[in-house]
Amino acid sequence: MQKALNVGMIGYGFMGRAHSNAYRKLNNFFDLEHRPVLKAVCARSPEKVKDFAARWGYESTETDWRKLIERKDIDLIDICTPNTPHAEIAGAAARAGKMILCEKPLSMNGPEGEKMVEAVENAKVPNMVWYNYRRIPAVTLAKKLIDDGRLGRIFHYRAKFLQDWTISADLPQGGTALWRLDVAAAGSGVTGDLLAHCVDTALWLNGPIDSLSAMTETFIKERKHNLTGKVEKVGIDDACTFMCRFSNGSLANFESTRYARGHKALYTFEINGEHASIFWDLHDLHRLQYFDHRDQGIVRGWRSIHVTDGDHPYMGKWWVPGLQIGYGHSFVHQLADFLEGVEKGKPAMPDFRDALRTQYVCDAVLQSAKDGKWVPVQKK
Amino acid sequence: MQKALNVGMIGYGFMGRAHSNAYRKLNNFFDLEHRPVLKAVCARSPEKVKDFAARWGYESTETDWRKLIERKDIDLIDICTPNTPHAEIAGAAARAGKMILCEKPLSMNGPEGEKMVEAVENAKVPNMVWYNYRRIPAVTLAKKLIDDGRLGRIFHYRAKFLQDWTISADLPQGGTALWRLDVAAAGSGVTGDLLAHCVDTALWLNGPIDSLSAMTETFIKERKHNLTGKVEKVGIDDACTFMCRFSNGSLANFESTRYARGHKALYTFEINGEHASIFWDLHDLHRLQYFDHRDQGIVRGWRSIHVTDGDHPYMGKWWVPGLQIGYGHSFVHQLADFLEGVEKGKPAMPDFRDALRTQYVCDAVLQSAKDGKWVPVQKK
Amino acid sequence: MQKALNVGMIGYGFMGRAHSNAYRKLNNFFDLEHRPVLKAVCARSPEKVKDFAARWGYESTETDWRKLIERKDIDLIDICTPNTPHAEIAGAAARAGKMILCEKPLSMNGPEGEKMVEAVENAKVPNMVWYNYRRIPAVTLAKKLIDDGRLGRIFHYRAKFLQDWTISADLPQGGTALWRLDVAAAGSGVTGDLLAHCVDTALWLNGPIDSLSAMTETFIKERKHNLTGKVEKVGIDDACTFMCRFSNGSLANFESTRYARGHKALYTFEINGEHASIFWDLHDLHRLQYFDHRDQGIVRGWRSIHVTDGDHPYMGKWWVPGLQIGYGHSFVHQLADFLEGVEKGKPAMPDFRDALRTQYVCDAVLQSAKDGKWVPVQKK
Amino acid sequence: MQKALNVGMIGYGFMGRAHSNAYRKLNNFFDLEHRPVLKAVCARSPEKVKDFAARWGYESTETDWRKLIERKDIDLIDICTPNTPHAEIAGAAARAGKMILCEKPLSMNGPEGEKMVEAVENAKVPNMVWYNYRRIPAVTLAKKLIDDGRLGRIFHYRAKFLQDWTISADLPQGGTALWRLDVAAAGSGVTGDLLAHCVDTALWLNGPIDSLSAMTETFIKERKHNLTGKVEKVGIDDACTFMCRFSNGSLANFESTRYARGHKALYTFEINGEHASIFWDLHDLHRLQYFDHRDQGIVRGWRSIHVTDGDHPYMGKWWVPGLQIGYGHSFVHQLADFLEGVEKGKPAMPDFRDALRTQYVCDAVLQSAKDGKWVPVQKK
Repeated sequence: MQKALNVGMIGYGFMGRAHSNAYRKLNNFFDLEHRPVLKAVCARSPEKVKDFAARWGYESTETDWRKLIERKDIDLIDICTPNTPHAEIAGAAARAGKMILCEKPLSMNGPEGEKMVEAVENAKVPNMVWYNYRRIPAVTLAKKLIDDGRLGRIFHYRAKFLQDWTISADLPQGGTALWRLDVAAAGSGVTGDLLAHCVDTALWLNGPIDSLSAMTETFIKERKHNLTGKVEKVGIDDACTFMCRFSNGSLANFESTRYARGHKALYTFEINGEHASIFWDLHDLHRLQYFDHRDQGIVRGWRSIHVTDGDHPYMGKWWVPGLQIGYGHSFVHQLADFLEGVEKGKPAMPDFRDALRTQYVCDAVLQSAKDGKWVPVQKK
Repeated sequence: MQKALNVGMIGYGFMGRAHSNAYRKLNNFFDLEHRPVLKAVCARSPEKVKDFAARWGYESTETDWRKLIERKDIDLIDICTPNTPHAEIAGAAARAGKMILCEKPLSMNGPEGEKMVEAVENAKVPNMVWYNYRRIPAVTLAKKLIDDGRLGRIFHYRAKFLQDWTISADLPQGGTALWRLDVAAAGSGVTGDLLAHCVDTALWLNGPIDSLSAMTETFIKERKHNLTGKVEKVGIDDACTFMCRFSNGSLANFESTRYARGHKALYTFEINGEHASIFWDLHDLHRLQYFDHRDQGIVRGWRSIHVTDGDHPYMGKWWVPGLQIGYGHSFVHQLADFLEGVEKGKPAMPDFRDALRTQYVCDAVLQSAKDGKWVPVQKK
Repeated sequence: MQKALNVGMIGYGFMGRAHSNAYRKLNNFFDLEHRPVLKAVCARSPEKVKDFAARWGYESTETDWRKLIERKDIDLIDICTPNTPHAEIAGAAARAGKMILCEKPLSMNGPEGEKMVEAVENAKVPNMVWYNYRRIPAVTLAKKLIDDGRLGRIFHYRAKFLQDWTISADLPQGGTALWRLDVAAAGSGVTGDLLAHCVDTALWLNGPIDSLSAMTETFIKERKHNLTGKVEKVGIDDACTFMCRFSNGSLANFESTRYARGHKALYTFEINGEHASIFWDLHDLHRLQYFDHRDQGIVRGWRSIHVTDGDHPYMGKWWVPGLQIGYGHSFVHQLADFLEGVEKGKPAMPDFRDALRTQYVCDAVLQSAKDGKWVPVQKK
Repeated sequence: MQKALNVGMIGYGFMGRAHSNAYRKLNNFFDLEHRPVLKAVCARSPEKVKDFAARWGYESTETDWRKLIERKDIDLIDICTPNTPHAEIAGAAARAGKMILCEKPLSMNGPEGEKMVEAVENAKVPNMVWYNYRRIPAVTLAKKLIDDGRLGRIFHYRAKFLQDWTISADLPQGGTALWRLDVAAAGSGVTGDLLAHCVDTALWLNGPIDSLSAMTETFIKERKHNLTGKVEKVGIDDACTFMCRFSNGSLANFESTRYARGHKALYTFEINGEHASIFWDLHDLHRLQYFDHRDQGIVRGWRSIHVTDGDHPYMGKWWVPGLQIGYGHSFVHQLADFLEGVEKGKPAMPDFRDALRTQYVCDAVLQSAKDGKWVPVQKK
C-alpha cells in the first residue's frame, strides 16, 4: 500500500505547473512507496490560487506561506517562487520539519545559500533543488558514460545556454511574468537563470572548477518597470561568458545570453576526452552525440544516439523505442529519484549542499566580471 | 462547472496507457466543458485489470466488455484491443448510444469498416479513430501550411514508416505482447500497423488516392507461436511498399517495414509542391523542415522550424518556446479536439467514416501485392 | 618515365569541362605510368571549340568527329556528346582501335548498347562509362563496407535523385543547353539522366534486379522548342518511380524527378542489412551515415563518418583529414582507376558491358511505366 | 592575349601543393588578364624539389631562395615555408620588386609583421596573405549578408577551430612534417596555426577587437624532438581560449585546440545580430546556416543554405547547383581575386597590413594568457 505524501506548493507560475504535472503523473509510470497528494497550493492572490488549485486538483489553498508551513497535514514544501524569498521560506520549512524541494537557483548568493544548507542539515529534512536537466535521459546517459570511464582524461568542456526573447527594447521588466528581468527579484540575469543550469550539469559531469575569468553585459540599459510604471535602469546581466579551469585539468568556456537570435532555449554542452567525446543539445533533447576514437578508423564518426530505448535511463518507464518524451518528464524523473532516495536512505542529488557549489561559481562569475580579473571559486 | 465524461476503456496495453495518460492530463492544460472521469477499465484477466486500474485511478473494473457497455454510468467507450474485435465492440457500443474512440486501424478490412461506420452513423454517436500523428504539432502545422496554399500544385508525396524490431528470427509471434505479429489478431502486418498511419496522414494532407501498385514481403517465413507453442507459418507482411497516383495528379511512394536496421519508429513524410516543400520525421518530431522557393535566391534553404512556439499548433498550452513535448501529448491533443468537436457540434476528424478511407487504401495495397497489378482505390 | 596518353575529346559542354579538369589534375595527385595529353577537342562550331581548346590547353581542334577518330596521334576517345550519337561514335572509335571513355548513359537503349559492347569487345579496346558517383570517396567506402560483409543479409534498398530545375513552364526544351529536355537528343528524361546513376550504383552495391514495376509522369505537357521555335509536346519523363525485387531477395524503391522543390541534385541511397545500414547523400557528399547494430546498445546510433581521412578511399591523395574535395574530383578518381586498370590488366568498372546492365533496367522501367505491369529485367 | 605571370614558389609542403593546384586551375575556370606560369620552385633538398617540380610542371628548381628572388624571370614570390623565415624572405622579395603571396600567419609576431608591411609598402609591390577561408563560398556569402545590413546590431560572435590529431603522447615534435609542434619553427601552437584563421575571419566580418582575456594550455609537456632525437619540453600551446569585446559592442569567445576528440578540422563561427544570425562550419563547408527573425513567425527557422548556386559567390565558375567544390578551390578563388585586384588597381584583402591586425590579436592573446589579465589589442 502506498504512503500518501502531502504536498504544499508555494507559487503557481511556470514551475508550479511543471511540478504539479510531475506529482500527478509520477505513480502512473514509476513504482514507488510514496504517492504524492496535492494537498495545498499557496500564493498571494486568492482568486488566482483558487483557479490554479481547481485546474490541478489541489485540495486547498493558502495565501500566506507561513500558514502553509504551519499546517500539520503537509509533508513536503515545494518552493516555486522568484528567487528572493527562497532562503526565508526554506529556513522556516526546515524548522517545521518538512521535506523541501526548491526551485533553482538555490539562493540569491553563496552566503545566503550556506544558511539554507545549514537549516536543512540541522533539521535533517530531505531536500533537493530542481536542476531538472540532469534527468533528461540523454544527459543522464552522458553521466553514465563518463562514470564508466569511456572518455579518459578530460581536455575540454563547453556549455552554452542561448535564448533570444529579450532582444526587443520594448519589453518591460518586473512583475509576475517578467520578474526574471528585475534584479531585485532575480538577483542576477542570465547568470542565475541560465548559466546556473550549465554550471550544475558541468560540476556533476566534470567535477569542481578552480578559477575563472568572466565578462557580463547589459545590452539594453533601461526598460520600463512593470511595478513602478517608470523607465528604470536594468540591473541584470543580459549576457555572461566565462572561461575556467577545472580541478581535473580541463579547460572550459561557458556562455549564456538572451540575445542570440535564432535560439529559443539552446542549452548545449560538449566534453572532449582522450578517448571519446559527448555533445548534447536541449533543442533535440533525445539525441546524444557520441564519438569514440576506439571505433575502427574507417567507420569512426559521431554517433547520433536516439535515447529512447528501454535500457536508456528512465525510458523503460514510458513508451517504446523511437517515441519521445518531453521537457516536462524531467521533473517526473527528478521527483521519482528524490522519493526513491528518501525510501532507500540515499539522498538524490543535487541537494542544497550540492546546489550551493553552483552558487559559489555564479558568485565568482559575477565578481570576476565586475573586477575584470581571474577569481578562484570557493569550495567546501 | 465542468461536465463529467465517464470513460470505459477496453484493453490496457500500450495504447491503454497512452489513452489513460491523455484523460488524466487533459484538463490541466486544456480548457473544455468536459472533464473525463476514469470510470472503468475492462480486460479478461481480473488481476491484471485491477493492477492497471489501481495504477491509473480507474474507479472500477470489468472482465466482460459487454457488461461494460451495458453500464449506464459509462458515456464513452475507448477500444484499445487488438484489431479483431474492433467491429463487434464498436457495433455494440453504438447501439448502446455510447461515444466511441477506437484505436487504429479502424477494422480488419473495408467491408467490416463499412459496418462500423453504418453503426455509429445510425446511432448518431460521436466517434473517432486514434490516428494520433495528425496532432503532433509539427504535423498539424504542415496541414495548416498546405491549407494556406503555400505549396501550390503538388507533384510528389513520399512516406515511410521504418522499424527494425522484428529482424531476429528468434522472436516468436502472437500472445499479449506480440499480437501484432499474428495475422489472426492483427489482420495484416506492417500494412495495418505502420502503413495505415502514413496513409491516414497522406489522405488528410494530399487528398484521395486513385490507384496504386504494391508489393509485400515476409522475410522470416516461420516463427514460434506463443499461443500454440509450435513453429508456425508467419501470415503477416514484414514489409510493404507501394507507389500510387493521387487525384490531385501527384505521384507518391509509400513504404513500411520492420526490417530497416537503425530505425526505431522512423515515420517520415515529404511533400513537394510547385512553390514549397515540407518534410517531417517522427524521430525529431518537433522539427518541420520547410523550403520556400519564394525566399530570395541567395538565402534560400530548407528551414528547420523548431515547432515549440506559442503560436504553433497546441504549443501555447504547454511550456515556453524551445521546450519540447513528446509522443504522449499527441493523444491529449486528439482528445481535446474530440471533446471540443462534441461541444461545438463540429466533429473532429478522423471519425469512423474518414478512417474507412485508409482502410480502403490498405485493402487495395494488399490486393495489389497479391495480384501483382495496379489496383484502383475504392472511394465513397 | 611516364607514357603520354593522347586524348581526343568529342563535345565540350558540362561534361567536357569535368573530364578536361580530370585529365589536367590527374598526375599532380596520382602516381601512374600514363600521363594524359590534351591532344584534340572536337565540336561542330569552329569558334567555340577553339575557345574551349584555348581555355583548357588542347593542342588542336576538329569539327568532324570522324576525322578525330582517324587521327593516328589520338590514343583515347572521350565521348561527351548528347546521348544520340554515342553508339555510332563508339563503334567507329572501337574499329579504329582507340580506348573509349563514354559519358553515361551508355546508349539510347539496350539493343543499341549491346552493339556498343560487341564493338569494344571485338576490338579489345579498353572502355569505360563515366558513372562517376561510384568514385565519390564515401560511396566507394560504402562498397567496401558491403564487400566486407558488414551488413549481412540485405532487406531494403532505396535511392532517389531529386532536382527542381524544370518546374517553370517557361523553360524551353532542346538546343545546346537544354538537350536533356528533348527526347530526340536524350532518349528519355530523368530515367536516363538521373535514375541511371541510381541504378548503376545499386547494381554495383546490391547486385542484379529481377523484376520491377514503374510509373512515369510528364507534368508539363508542352514547352517551346529551341530548335523549331514552336511550342511542342514534351516527350521526356519529368519524374519516374519504380519498385523492384533484387536477386538477393531485397525490396527496393527508386525515384527520380526534376519537380522536387528544394532539392538541387539530391542523389541519396540507403541500404538496410541484417546487421548494419548505410545512407549517403550527394548534397553532403563527404558524409557516410553508418549504423551498426553490433555496437553496444546504449551507445548505438547512426555514425556520421566524415570521409576525409588518409585511410578512406582516394583521400590520402588530397589534403588532410577534415578538408573536403568536391564533385569534380570523382572524375579524377575514375580516370586514375581506368588507367591503373589498363596498366595492371584489370579493367576498371563500369565498362560498357557493366553499364549495359543499367540500360536494361532503364528499358524495363520505361516499358513497365508504359504498360502498367511488372516487368522482368533482362540480364546477360 | 593573356599576360604570363611567372611564379617562383618557396617551399613544397602541404601549402605548396595547395597553391600549385590553384595556379594550374585558375585560367580553366576564371577569366583574367594574367596567366600564371610555374617558373620555379625552391627548397633545400635538390632531389625532393625536383620531384615536386616534375609532378607539378615547374620549369626549373632552386635550392637557395635568395637566388630565386634574384632571378629576372620571376614576377611573383609565393612563400610556403614554416613561419620563421617569412619576414626575411618577404623583405628581400619586396626589395627585388616582386609581387608577394605569403602563407599565414604573416609573421612570428606583430613587430616582425610591421617590418614586412613597411617593406612591401615601400616597394609598392602587390601583396597578400593566404587566409584562404575568406574565399570559401559560404563564408564569402556570410560577409555579403553582413555588409548588406541583414543582421543589424551585433551582440555575439563565437569561433572555434577544433582538431584532435596531437592527442597521442607518442607524437614527436619538429622536423619537416611536424614543424607546427616546434615552437622555434612555428612561433606558437594553435594560436598562430588555427586561431589566426578564426581571428582573420572575425576581424573581416565583425571589425576590430578592443580587449581580450585569454588562457592557453600545453597538455603534453614533453615530446621527443625530431631534430635532436631527445625528449624536450614542448613550447607551443596545445589549446587556446579567449573572450573579448569588439569595437562594435559585441561580446565574443574564441577557442582553438588540437585536443578535441572527434573533430578533424572543425572551424566554426556564429554571429548573432538583432535581426538575423549566421553559422558556418568547415566540415560541411557548403552550408551556411541563416536565421532571419523577420521571416513570418510560424515558419521561422534556421535555413540550411546549400551554397552551390550560380548566384552564390564564385559558384557560377564551377559546376551546376547542388554539386560541391572543395577546400582546394578556396585558393583558386583567392588567387583570382588577387590578380583581379592587380588588374583593376584595387588590392584584394588581406594584404600584409590587413593581416598584421590578426598578428596583433594573437600577440595580445599570448600576452594575456601569460599574465592572466585583460589586455588591450594594438590597432593602427
